[in-house]
Amino acid sequence: MVFRTQRRVEFRDTDAAGITHFSAFFPMMEVAEHEMLRSLGISVMPRNGGSEGPESVTWPRVAASCQYKAAARFEDVLDILISIKKLGNSSVTYQFRFEREGDLIAEGEITTVCCRLNRDHGDGGLQKTPIPAQIRASLETL
Amino acid sequence: MVFRTQRRVEFRDTDAAGITHFSAFFPMMEVAEHEMLRSLGISVMPRNGGSEGPESVTWPRVAASCQYKAAARFEDVLDILISIKKLGNSSVTYQFRFEREGDLIAEGEITTVCCRLNRDHGDGGLQKTPIPAQIRASLETL
Amino acid sequence: MVFRTQRRVEFRDTDAAGITHFSAFFPMMEVAEHEMLRSLGISVMPRNGGSEGPESVTWPRVAASCQYKAAARFEDVLDILISIKKLGNSSVTYQFRFEREGDLIAEGEITTVCCRLNRDHGDGGLQKTPIPAQIRASLETL
Amino acid sequence: MVFRTQRRVEFRDTDAAGITHFSAFFPMMEVAEHEMLRSLGISVMPRNGGSEGPESVTWPRVAASCQYKAAARFEDVLDILISIKKLGNSSVTYQFRFEREGDLIAEGEITTVCCRLNRDHGDGGLQKTPIPAQIRASLETL
Repeated sequence: MVFRTQRRVEFRDTDAAGITHFSAFFPMMEVAEHEMLRSLGISVMPRNGGSEGPESVTWPRVAASCQYKAAARFEDVLDILISIKKLGNSSVTYQFRFEREGDLIAEGEITTVCCRLNRDHGDGGLQKTPIPAQIRASLETL
Repeated sequence: MVFRTQRRVEFRDTDAAGITHFSAFFPMMEVAEHEMLRSLGISVMPRNGGSEGPESVTWPRVAASCQYKAAARFEDVLDILISIKKLGNSSVTYQFRFEREGDLIAEGEITTVCCRLNRDHGDGGLQKTPIPAQIRASLETL
Repeated sequence: MVFRTQRRVEFRDTDAAGITHFSAFFPMMEVAEHEMLRSLGISVMPRNGGSEGPESVTWPRVAASCQYKAAARFEDVLDILISIKKLGNSSVTYQFRFEREGDLIAEGEITTVCCRLNRDHGDGGLQKTPIPAQIRASLETL
Repeated sequence: MVFRTQRRVEFRDTDAAGITHFSAFFPMMEVAEHEMLRSLGISVMPRNGGSEGPESVTWPRVAASCQYKAAARFEDVLDILISIKKLGNSSVTYQFRFEREGDLIAEGEITTVCCRLNRDHGDGGLQKTPIPAQIRASLETL
């Protein structure tokens, strides 16, 4: 199964070569990922670090990559397809596919690791943790 | 007196019209402001909200503006000049001037308000506070 | 009359103070403006500078400003309202209002000037031009 | 041999998790790459598409990736080291290493392909071309 969304290329995403800047695909992947997580009822980031429930986790990235197949231009409407490549004990690898009217524009991958956010902790408060069962169950539906 | 720094326009700051995107001037102002604050020995943001000293303040913006006089292009080296327009009880207004080889490119203004960052506080933890005396004294040298 | 759209705050728009970065409001204004222009049937930027028709104009900014009233946070859904403050011979000033569930978050303004894009022209190819009648008529409906 | 530069993490590069946003490493790689190219006397992008000389090429990316080893925070000064992993007929793969006081923060890679920029050309004007001899010779010194 695949999650599917759309994004129109914004002017700010373009550069003086007249095309979408290569770095702009990474925030586009993230926005799509967050939209997918919300669609599964998964909170993306705890508010004020308050709750101790299964939701109070954050997802720093350990790897991100993108391969560019064709230029995307200002105002192009891109279809973004997400699938889960690997669901580990505390990490997830998502695959992203950007298409414009069926043509492949770019393919990307993000690996993210489940962490508890503890602001009092010395190391910036990020501690690796197993993916909570409730979130894992939701991700497994994908 | 004026603080002076330089910035080369980065490719990511340009857009498909071939010029520096208008929004890119705001982070450029901020980077110059932070460089100026560091040059005065003022910490820009408290680490981990730990300290209770005069430094543990943050500076959300209440207003920002920019007037564009000429296009800046990729790789242009811009001179950025900062002066203080108004130093209030808890706010500061900075003026910015962007020049390229003496020609005016843009003029901007940022008004920022001194706040304590209290993450446990309901309203996102931002509470307006008078500018600490030590910081005020440093800013007055400008 | 007012054009109205929505935008969810993206993670990339936030900063280490936990709120939407002040500079992120400017691309948000622009995206809303472009959405409005498209809704009026106005092409935002000529493709490849090809056409000589009324549409082959671009809109560099001469001024932009924003006043911040309350912090916006990650995933907040913002209502963005656009109205035209001034429609000149070759320039337009838009007013923007950002609201979250009816509460004012920020107010902004962008003044943009109608230009022909002529890449062979020495000055980066931007030449001020009266707003084409067809575009003016569309803007007047707002 | 390796090219070495530095970059201070800007506030705009951080996010609400308090760390440098993963996507911000890609523009940082690009800025370092451009600095390296300038240090070798290689023009990064032709101005106004004017010249027909060896310099009138542009470098769209075919792949970019980053692996994140430790969080970088606002104001951290990062050392960025660039080396050439592969110099092909018309493509170059750069390797990037981000360090903070000797500790590895991230490793990245960008593969870029040499293209002529021909705005009259249908496909956005990007045509793959062998790396000009003069540029190749400069890159080989690295």
